[in-house]
Amino acid sequence: MLRNDRVNNVMERLSCDQLLICDPLSIYYLCEKMIHPGERFLGLLLRRNRTPILYVNELFRFEEELGVEKKYYSDIDDVAQLVGVDTDHSAVLGVDKILPARFLLPFMEQGIASGFMNGSVAVDHTRAVKDSVEIELMRESSRINDAAMAQFKGLIHDGVSEKEVAAQVMDIYRSLGAEGLSFPAIVAFGVNAADPHHMPDDTVIKEGDAVLFDVGCVYHGYCSDMTRTFFYKKGPSKEQEIIYNLVKNACESAEEYVQPGRRLCDIDSIARDIITEGGYGPYFTHRLGHFIGQEDHEYGDVSQGFKEVTVPGNIFSIEPGIYHPSILGCRIEDLILVTEDGHEVLNHYPREIEIIG
Amino acid sequence: MLRNDRVNNVMERLSCDQLLICDPLSIYYLCEKMIHPGERFLGLLLRRNRTPILYVNELFRFEEELGVEKKYYSDIDDVAQLVGVDTDHSAVLGVDKILPARFLLPFMEQGIASGFMNGSVAVDHTRAVKDSVEIELMRESSRINDAAMAQFKGLIHDGVSEKEVAAQVMDIYRSLGAEGLSFPAIVAFGVNAADPHHMPDDTVIKEGDAVLFDVGCVYHGYCSDMTRTFFYKKGPSKEQEIIYNLVKNACESAEEYVQPGRRLCDIDSIARDIITEGGYGPYFTHRLGHFIGQEDHEYGDVSQGFKEVTVPGNIFSIEPGIYHPSILGCRIEDLILVTEDGHEVLNHYPREIEIIG
Repeated sequence: MLRNDRVNNVMERLSCDQLLICDPLSIYYLCEKMIHPGERFLGLLLRRNRTPILYVNELFRFEEELGVEKKYYSDIDDVAQLVGVDTDHSAVLGVDKILPARFLLPFMEQGIASGFMNGSVAVDHTRAVKDSVEIELMRESSRINDAAMAQFKGLIHDGVSEKEVAAQVMDIYRSLGAEGLSFPAIVAFGVNAADPHHMPDDTVIKEGDAVLFDVGCVYHGYCSDMTRTFFYKKGPSKEQEIIYNLVKNACESAEEYVQPGRRLCDIDSIARDIITEGGYGPYFTHRLGHFIGQEDHEYGDVSQGFKEVTVPGNIFSIEPGIYHPSILGCRIEDLILVTEDGHEVLNHYPREIEIIG
Repeated sequence: MLRNDRVNNVMERLSCDQLLICDPLSIYYLCEKMIHPGERFLGLLLRRNRTPILYVNELFRFEEELGVEKKYYSDIDDVAQLVGVDTDHSAVLGVDKILPARFLLPFMEQGIASGFMNGSVAVDHTRAVKDSVEIELMRESSRINDAAMAQFKGLIHDGVSEKEVAAQVMDIYRSLGAEGLSFPAIVAFGVNAADPHHMPDDTVIKEGDAVLFDVGCVYHGYCSDMTRTFFYKKGPSKEQEIIYNLVKNACESAEEYVQPGRRLCDIDSIARDIITEGGYGPYFTHRLGHFIGQEDHEYGDVSQGFKEVTVPGNIFSIEPGIYHPSILGCRIEDLILVTEDGHEVLNHYPREIEIIG
């Protein structure tokens, strides 16, 4: 059913009078109806003070009333003609940032609007502020992730490879009530933990290895995302301990700083400065975090380049790391919610040094 | 390494002088380098008689020489400026059909070409004609699929649900050497087989049920796709047998008809006419088939609306079905290759009525 509050939020933020949304997740967000159109066109047209129109291929017919006008089309229909009947040809049309060229170019050729602009920021900004329903789902998704982390560390034993561990992640999430992965799980042993984009391979665990899990699940359409770095059978060396505690301090200090009205670039700086002052600045090679919700990566990030200011309902990751190829690769990540008067860390799995196995 | 033969094929089919390809699968097809850029820009610019340029975010740096000029950019760079340095602003630029509006609109605003057209058909037509390397991979992918089908039927026993069966499909493919699924497996029992888009649910098998498997795997980047319909513990009724044999006859007759120079719509007609003359026309509700290769669904289909003519190297599915809610839902699907002098069916799993369990 159409979520009028969310639609109104989008229209308030929009700088033109008509917007064509195509991202199935944004359409789900606004109408509570998930349609996977594959390569076929799917669109939700919003116009001020008019009933929204949903364009759906007849292959995906459905019964529910959503409070929108449904217009079905077939594979032999012309999509530009279909949409052009409803758009104001003398006004600018905001289009979804993901609208593919194969639709946008015919829209232009057929002149279904006087101009075209990327209208997604209106939806992105709305999606970046979670409402109470979404916050509860995000909390539960992270609760499952905390419980799963406690089980993942139990999968590590002599002789096991990263791939073998990663292959069991989904079953554990499923047993805890999640419906899927929010991204392919990262499981990295030893030196592999020093590659922030490492994908699980045939590397077998060795005593003394760092064991990095960067994992998340989907619960009722909402994502979690957390990283912990363990040590296998042997505590860290002195230098490893220094790096670990620097990352932990960077993570916790950045979290402490979060409240409404903070610039996201300044949150990044809190963590980055700590790591830089500790002498490992060059080994922290990525942004501090990213917004998250229906997708693991959503509009908005916690980086030097992102000057926007936090508002209650924002949820993003805080995930500093130090990737030193010969000492230690380590990352610690939580999700954090901006509340009315501060913040709430959504992950509760401990951040202390933990020896497993 | 750049596949010059494939690039030349693309440029010959292109009706402008510069083409920007963005689909990671098309880039892999042309350069043998797979990059998953996520939400970041990835582009391969082809220009007549010039070295191709590959634009890659610096997060995805790599060492190999591909025979292209690599241009790295960072998250703070402007993609339109980056590409605009290399395009001819006084000529039309062909763009990838999947190029998202968030890139295409700035390209237009900054005038990096005199006009923009969907240039994908040049790539699509090239990808639709498989070369010998691809044909061998497609054969092997379907060989694995044949072997897997023989194991899938063994998963059916009293008390098992569709979901439980579907959850085991990937392990079987992996044990046979495949790397992934070409699409989520369809496992449908009884009346569910009469829904061509059914997704596995908690339905439990019953004696006398039809058991439909529509499954495929990925082998070295190439997809297979096959459907068989079995009967559980009890042979089909007289009416079910008529439907089954009509579908089988439609499938085999269409396959027999395939050779170079056939219109794809006429191949569709062969199967459709048989089912219609048998009295079940209204229950065959989809196109006869689709092209396949690196993706399960590629450009080109076997339908009334697709008038193009087959050439050697085309590979597509032939998959007639009859979906009668109260008698039987049944589909039989093979992949078929157009050869120089006829065709080669890539699937060898028998199409005869088979009682399992």
